[in-house]
Amino acid sequence: MTDKKKISILDSTLRDGSQGEGISYSVQDKINIVLALDELGVTFIEAGNPGSNPKDMEFFIEAKKLQLKNSKIVAFGSTRRRDLSCAEDVNLQSLLSADTEYVCIFGKTWDFQVTDILHATLDENIEMIRDTVAYLKSKDKKVIFDAEHFFTGYKVNPEYALKSLEAAVEGGAVCLSLCETKGGAMPSECKNAVEAVASRFGSKVEVGIHTHNDCGLAVANSLIAVEAGASHVQGVLLGFGERTGNANLSTIIADLQLKLGFECVPQENMKLLTPICKRIAEITNIALEPGMPFVGSSAFAHKAGMHIDAVIKNPFAYEHIEPETVGNERVFLMSEVAGKSMIVEKVQKFDKSLTKNSPVVAEIVKRVKDLEHEGYQFEGADASFEILVRKTMGKYQPFFNLHYYKTSGEFPRFSDDQSAFAQVKLDVEGTSVITAGEGDGPVNAMDTALRKALVQFYPAVAKIHLTDYKVRVLDGKEATASAVRVLIESSDGENSWSTMGVASDVIEASYIALVDSFEYKLIKDLERKYSRII
Amino acid sequence: MTDKKKISILDSTLRDGSQGEGISYSVQDKINIVLALDELGVTFIEAGNPGSNPKDMEFFIEAKKLQLKNSKIVAFGSTRRRDLSCAEDVNLQSLLSADTEYVCIFGKTWDFQVTDILHATLDENIEMIRDTVAYLKSKDKKVIFDAEHFFTGYKVNPEYALKSLEAAVEGGAVCLSLCETKGGAMPSECKNAVEAVASRFGSKVEVGIHTHNDCGLAVANSLIAVEAGASHVQGVLLGFGERTGNANLSTIIADLQLKLGFECVPQENMKLLTPICKRIAEITNIALEPGMPFVGSSAFAHKAGMHIDAVIKNPFAYEHIEPETVGNERVFLMSEVAGKSMIVEKVQKFDKSLTKNSPVVAEIVKRVKDLEHEGYQFEGADASFEILVRKTMGKYQPFFNLHYYKTSGEFPRFSDDQSAFAQVKLDVEGTSVITAGEGDGPVNAMDTALRKALVQFYPAVAKIHLTDYKVRVLDGKEATASAVRVLIESSDGENSWSTMGVASDVIEASYIALVDSFEYKLIKDLERKYSRII
Repeated sequence: MTDKKKISILDSTLRDGSQGEGISYSVQDKINIVLALDELGVTFIEAGNPGSNPKDMEFFIEAKKLQLKNSKIVAFGSTRRRDLSCAEDVNLQSLLSADTEYVCIFGKTWDFQVTDILHATLDENIEMIRDTVAYLKSKDKKVIFDAEHFFTGYKVNPEYALKSLEAAVEGGAVCLSLCETKGGAMPSECKNAVEAVASRFGSKVEVGIHTHNDCGLAVANSLIAVEAGASHVQGVLLGFGERTGNANLSTIIADLQLKLGFECVPQENMKLLTPICKRIAEITNIALEPGMPFVGSSAFAHKAGMHIDAVIKNPFAYEHIEPETVGNERVFLMSEVAGKSMIVEKVQKFDKSLTKNSPVVAEIVKRVKDLEHEGYQFEGADASFEILVRKTMGKYQPFFNLHYYKTSGEFPRFSDDQSAFAQVKLDVEGTSVITAGEGDGPVNAMDTALRKALVQFYPAVAKIHLTDYKVRVLDGKEATASAVRVLIESSDGENSWSTMGVASDVIEASYIALVDSFEYKLIKDLERKYSRII
Repeated sequence: MTDKKKISILDSTLRDGSQGEGISYSVQDKINIVLALDELGVTFIEAGNPGSNPKDMEFFIEAKKLQLKNSKIVAFGSTRRRDLSCAEDVNLQSLLSADTEYVCIFGKTWDFQVTDILHATLDENIEMIRDTVAYLKSKDKKVIFDAEHFFTGYKVNPEYALKSLEAAVEGGAVCLSLCETKGGAMPSECKNAVEAVASRFGSKVEVGIHTHNDCGLAVANSLIAVEAGASHVQGVLLGFGERTGNANLSTIIADLQLKLGFECVPQENMKLLTPICKRIAEITNIALEPGMPFVGSSAFAHKAGMHIDAVIKNPFAYEHIEPETVGNERVFLMSEVAGKSMIVEKVQKFDKSLTKNSPVVAEIVKRVKDLEHEGYQFEGADASFEILVRKTMGKYQPFFNLHYYKTSGEFPRFSDDQSAFAQVKLDVEGTSVITAGEGDGPVNAMDTALRKALVQFYPAVAKIHLTDYKVRVLDGKEATASAVRVLIESSDGENSWSTMGVASDVIEASYIALVDSFEYKLIKDLERKYSRII
């Protein structure tokens, strides 16, 4: 038991979130997301509209088989159609057949939407709300009423907006969820409207909030609503959704639970917040935004040298919470403004006995500074940094040596998807290997030739996929002859890593980054095999 | 004149924003960002710390030559060191030599930071603040005092936090900018602290707010501070910065100006908000987040079928503002029907008689859509867009035609600064020309060969310098064989222009962008010569 005020969290990743650009879930994806959200411990998982498409219905059948620890699955639908009874309304019947304890029903509360979009009279809409909620209650459902456009409605016709809520309460709804559908409300508007609803209906039903981020205020408006009397918060764990997205629940849960003293999920689960967000990003096939509050990879990243010294002296000096509280970690970014202490922290992962005064640390600092002066920027290339540290510490042996590479490219291209050749000569484990490859551009051709040579000796090279490739010219003044920095992200399906190369020739810079990527994978495989730092 | 309350906006893209992961600007990038921010019309541009690195000092020398319409450039530094007088403090002397009307000085206001990080006594810190501000004032500077960690300081020791502000006011600061450095303050804390400061110092100096997004509240806390009496807002136009980023000024400006009735930039400039954000994203070489409020490409994107019908019936039904107000456009994701008005606006520069219904406009819209689908993004490449419009309108004749180019590159390089050859064959004014060149990488070699061929016919080509060259891979999934977008900035010493090429081969994409650049210069020279649109 806890004496903290409990907030019920409704996650709508699978319903409102799936309206986001480029987001689409299979039934198995949905099941995996339900399991992740249940592990985190949200109260409700709004999982789709069984009346709107057969995939959602299939999901509800599968979902019945799950044994959830914390969460209840909610089916979503709308009030009955104007010209049908509830029993005749196919969508409502689908909703019932989803067989969930809770259902969420949206209805109109803004007079303009009733008359101009729904083409119903204001009284008809009130009847539709009361009637639908009462019908569902008679079928033993607990009904959450989503008051669509409530904040716009309350602004232009507060009397009607409240009357529509009254109808839901009379019908027997257990919760009134006030939807900020257009995302345009300012904090003070939000506060006043929620206070009005809480004071009128708060003794009979739970009051909820559902916001969108069109003015960058979805999180703030949710917190303000809770302080104004709401105890049910709807959103999407990673904040995606139509337009600018839904309220980001990972931020809201952390703010409410760690800053404002409410309980949204079991306290011991707070440390799952970052891993669960990462898992849901993977299932959704999107990159988790590095700057996302609490859970992003940069959320506790420090760059400026002065700050880093201070953070190491005392994390409290520059961090508002301990990153471990939400399962995230502190990161020190490599950069021209960074001091020595950050390098020590990274080097200690290899050898705990090293300190600021160890000669090898001074040597690494010097190498980093020299390379940064050439244009390297290790903050984005952890794998290249690790290889640099290994080289300086004598914990590195090359897997191969380059004699030469030659590339050629031409326009018009010699085939639809080929415009270049490359040839490489390597020494690999004492053997001289010459291979050639074609490609779409010289870098791609060289990548092909290099892999051909290496895979004979190191089959793991075949597993490496390049997932991103970025080029930046470092000094614009000499333009096409300036130094270029190439950043490559690689993956073997399980792990991903980033490497970097700098040279005045983009092919050479790409070669350097490619070699680091291949070697990093081979080193990690050996480490795993021998379970030691080689 | 306007009777709206004026808010002074300080953009710190070039100082606090450049602390963001992976962000690094050349001096030319910085100049381009200053010009963009000035065009938008922010009051202050905080442009760097002249004491911290020589690149920033070089920028301030260049920046003096700019004729800005709206904005003032601000140099940033800290209070004098504990053990030095202001005249002895090298950083303060660098700050003065930046020669700006306004300077921004940060100082400690949280007692713990004074004693445990700065290792000064509380009284010493008060002296350092008063002394530094007074010294700068005596040198005719207007001083903005950045009260670092003010909100944490005010929470743990309000008396000392206010005393440190008092010292800045006594020293003669014109503005007290309250910094929410750790990003951990909740809206109500923020409100109470700003109200306390405004009531105590608001009659003597301007009160400002500077927030970070660690709790997802940077925008909300800025708005709440303004409602509590602040009239100066600091942030970063696109919201990037260390950790979770700085307050996003594009959102704050839109909220304050369109929703809350304040004036942050000239009203007629609000429609520049989206194009300027896109331009700054291009200069920074980052993708503008599609879901960013107001300015993201998805900010007014509609997906759900029901919503689109309603939006077509009446945009007011689902949109909180008209997208055109901020220079953005409505997008329907399923039908891909986008707004024509932006294109009409640009085409009218050539021919004022053209309207939305002119057939040539429809043709240009179609070409733009096709090219955007391939990966072009004309916001960052005005010269390429102009050439596209000319081509579609029949106002274009090629200056030359390409038969072929061939490039080759090798490692080890054949000389210190040469690693590649290129050969081109062109038809120029009826003559067949074959030239070859060497270079540092194949793109540079091709640039050399192309210029050699063209300069015989068009001597002006010799005046074209490429000032920047950027490459971005558009679809990370196929890595080195993905489509790449090359963005080139060129200058002839008087004007500068940007062009773009997209292809799967980086050399081909560079070729396309180079040709646009050369042709644009030649067209502009002819225009000037004949004073007419050719």
